[in-house]
Amino acid sequence: MAISGDLLIGGASIRGAAAPFSASNPADASTMEPSFAGATREQVEKAASLAWEAFPVYKETSLEDRASFLEAIAERILALGDELVLRAIDETGLPRGRIEGERGRTVGQLRLFAKEVRDGNFQELRFDPADPDRKPAAKPDLRLRNVALGPVAVFGASNFPLAFSVAGGDTASALAAGCPVIVKAHSAHPGTSALVGKAVVEAVAACGLPAGTFALLFDAGFEVGQTLVADHRVRAVGFTGSRRGGTALMKIASERKQPIPVYAEMSSINPVILFPDALLNRGAEIGKSFASSLTLGAGQFCTNPGLIIAVDGAGLDAFIGSAAAALSEAPAQTMLTGGICEAYRKGVERLSSASSVSRVSVGKEGTPHQAAAALFETTAAAFLADPELQEEVFGAAGLIVRCKDENELYGVVESLEGQLTIALHIDADDVAAASQILPQLEVLAGRLLVNGFGTGVEVSPAMVHGGPYPATSDGRSTSVGTLAIYRFLRPVSYQDFPGALLPKALRTA
Amino acid sequence: MAISGDLLIGGASIRGAAAPFSASNPADASTMEPSFAGATREQVEKAASLAWEAFPVYKETSLEDRASFLEAIAERILALGDELVLRAIDETGLPRGRIEGERGRTVGQLRLFAKEVRDGNFQELRFDPADPDRKPAAKPDLRLRNVALGPVAVFGASNFPLAFSVAGGDTASALAAGCPVIVKAHSAHPGTSALVGKAVVEAVAACGLPAGTFALLFDAGFEVGQTLVADHRVRAVGFTGSRRGGTALMKIASERKQPIPVYAEMSSINPVILFPDALLNRGAEIGKSFASSLTLGAGQFCTNPGLIIAVDGAGLDAFIGSAAAALSEAPAQTMLTGGICEAYRKGVERLSSASSVSRVSVGKEGTPHQAAAALFETTAAAFLADPELQEEVFGAAGLIVRCKDENELYGVVESLEGQLTIALHIDADDVAAASQILPQLEVLAGRLLVNGFGTGVEVSPAMVHGGPYPATSDGRSTSVGTLAIYRFLRPVSYQDFPGALLPKALRTA
Repeated sequence: MAISGDLLIGGASIRGAAAPFSASNPADASTMEPSFAGATREQVEKAASLAWEAFPVYKETSLEDRASFLEAIAERILALGDELVLRAIDETGLPRGRIEGERGRTVGQLRLFAKEVRDGNFQELRFDPADPDRKPAAKPDLRLRNVALGPVAVFGASNFPLAFSVAGGDTASALAAGCPVIVKAHSAHPGTSALVGKAVVEAVAACGLPAGTFALLFDAGFEVGQTLVADHRVRAVGFTGSRRGGTALMKIASERKQPIPVYAEMSSINPVILFPDALLNRGAEIGKSFASSLTLGAGQFCTNPGLIIAVDGAGLDAFIGSAAAALSEAPAQTMLTGGICEAYRKGVERLSSASSVSRVSVGKEGTPHQAAAALFETTAAAFLADPELQEEVFGAAGLIVRCKDENELYGVVESLEGQLTIALHIDADDVAAASQILPQLEVLAGRLLVNGFGTGVEVSPAMVHGGPYPATSDGRSTSVGTLAIYRFLRPVSYQDFPGALLPKALRTA
Repeated sequence: MAISGDLLIGGASIRGAAAPFSASNPADASTMEPSFAGATREQVEKAASLAWEAFPVYKETSLEDRASFLEAIAERILALGDELVLRAIDETGLPRGRIEGERGRTVGQLRLFAKEVRDGNFQELRFDPADPDRKPAAKPDLRLRNVALGPVAVFGASNFPLAFSVAGGDTASALAAGCPVIVKAHSAHPGTSALVGKAVVEAVAACGLPAGTFALLFDAGFEVGQTLVADHRVRAVGFTGSRRGGTALMKIASERKQPIPVYAEMSSINPVILFPDALLNRGAEIGKSFASSLTLGAGQFCTNPGLIIAVDGAGLDAFIGSAAAALSEAPAQTMLTGGICEAYRKGVERLSSASSVSRVSVGKEGTPHQAAAALFETTAAAFLADPELQEEVFGAAGLIVRCKDENELYGVVESLEGQLTIALHIDADDVAAASQILPQLEVLAGRLLVNGFGTGVEVSPAMVHGGPYPATSDGRSTSVGTLAIYRFLRPVSYQDFPGALLPKALRTA
């Protein structure tokens, strides 16, 4: 399929009338064909208007029709075959195995939400029967269901060109909830976005859904996104990206005449707490697996373990020695974009030049377009004194906080901001200490894990990929797993409705 | 029980060190004993600090212990007997029947949440078993539960001195969720608040819970509330009051280092749409029951029907004639406070002096401290041209919008802001027209009702007392009914936890 670089609005390819841009291959900074034309304000408004028109029809599609639609998207993504894989590799610098795995995850997510839609539990149907004889007042008939919020603006993420982009988790869960979706494609992988967008548009048509059910917009800058979030017809936002980007959208959304929920997944350094018994027994082993998690995918995961917290001792030295050795052998990797690579280098430079921080290890140098892993160390006192050390360096950079004793460790934990994940490494003798700190950790993160690292994120009913601010803008939600559908729903109660006027799902208890 | 006028912090009566104030009897503007002393910033911080300390213990109380605690509060409120009823009557001007009914509702809410806690469904326990043999990667063990958000600041509402005040719906649902509660008492009924607060404090002690589980603070102004919402240990806010108050709290909450959810129920004019067949058959009858709903409790309900929308015709004339006649016989009523009475008079004056609005009827005059009901009429064109006509006049004032035809009626509906309720009056021949407009209404309100008025709010599983902004700050929630507990919870996922470290509820599937 030729990639036209057009916007997809109302089921049609429309040339954007704002500034054009091109994708860049991050491996060599070469420019890729074709050029993508940004959307104007009018084009954004057209997409919003069509989504608003589609909304009452799409939200009342039968569970079966909606589930089939999600499956049709999955089918069409697979049907894109190697063209999609190759384009994604070229646009992101990610290896084939990763892209193919991510495609599997994307398709799996769509199918999981299809199942969730068929189950129908997300509707939360509730029935309170009438009691005309109740005293002092008759009891009315009350029925409740969840309804879709309205059109949702989804922002593709740079680091998951498939699983958190055009037909990724946010889109799948919003469509599952009954919300039309308008995607602002990430400008780092517009070709990948165009291919997947076309697959969704074809599925919309094949399933006989309103053309406004889905739209894909391009923009090299911020204007399209800002216009979308401010548009009165858009009723929720899904975003994965930087804290700066996320908080900017939160601000726009809160200043609207009608504020709307923003589900922004922003930044997390995913602390790893190493307990004494585990360090003593397995310090070197944990160090090795930490190095491998830190460098996975050039460290470009929201759940990348960027912070190690542990009490000083021989076990910690063994951990550091082993992690440092593994890291020094780690090959440099191409990062997602030149901009991300540059930001990573600046972050590493910031840590390197901090007087209270020392460099423990650095990975192998690569091409000018690749980044080397880096590991640093500081003291608890220095960490507590400098809030900047908590700032995420997106990429394979880690910081070890060496604590003098348990109390210092608790102090460091207490100083942490909200996180997506916190990992504990424990052996049998650590359970009591871990239990003691658990209530503190539950307040800080969406997912707690034992003897592992957060980088693998299951797409399943019990997953929480979320966490208190600034990990996300709304710690009451998850962007991965079936619970994600609830972000785009709200309850509506129907009182004393005659059967003919009731929504179908509420007609019989 | 003598009312001391002290704050209740850490289970102790503590004299507030800020400016004192007294309650005023709205029936005659007389000052009531004793004086209540406002809390200083330090006293607010003390309450927050104790709540934060109580949190890890309170949130892990067993379901049975927490349910018993809620029931113990209910018992102690009832045990206050007539002292509570008389004080509430004096402080609010509400009649005995209403106060007694509200006490029943308050106790019923606490017991309903006790049942909800015992059921345990709100924990949303989820189990994804491990699969070590899965390819390409082993599947971890994942378990999920909802955990309490943290200490909650609750603002007592002026119009429900019991059911939405110190131990009202917000407090009951937050405590049920496992959150300590700090109440900022409404300055219009401090004695009622003090009595109920003492009952809660006694229940905390009797149940052996941490003393910081509950606190009661006084303030005649805004500083205590602002300090509370800004405090980093407070993690959610429950508020019922004016739009100005609610949006001020939303702003403070969103500008914190860590923004927190605010559940503010603010303003709603609860439109009533009269359809042609119903008007034709029952116009006069509907008019009579409308007048009775409008004047119920001096119109001081969040769900008071303040706006009538209908197409011109004989049926509407019959409705207006009957409503006007009934209203002209309605006795004046004492409003909750002198300030509310004055604001009501100003609102009525604003409508009376609007050139596009004509007065249809006015209730009987009463004492200088009472307010008379008032009914106005305008055209659809005038309503659409003047957004101020959508502003809530808190009290027994109604506005009828006379539409030339169905299209004008749809236009008026389309212009509406978010609402708590929308009522439809229909007969058999109206069902088709009502069906057509239903999707529009679902987007606008939390509860839709047929052939009734929204003033009765059932406390039950299928109730939604919420709605899109500005009816509330968060249309994804309800402040009445069992779903209200979910406002104060967030999901946490536990991965590969050994049994001994898992929260008890997650130990066995």
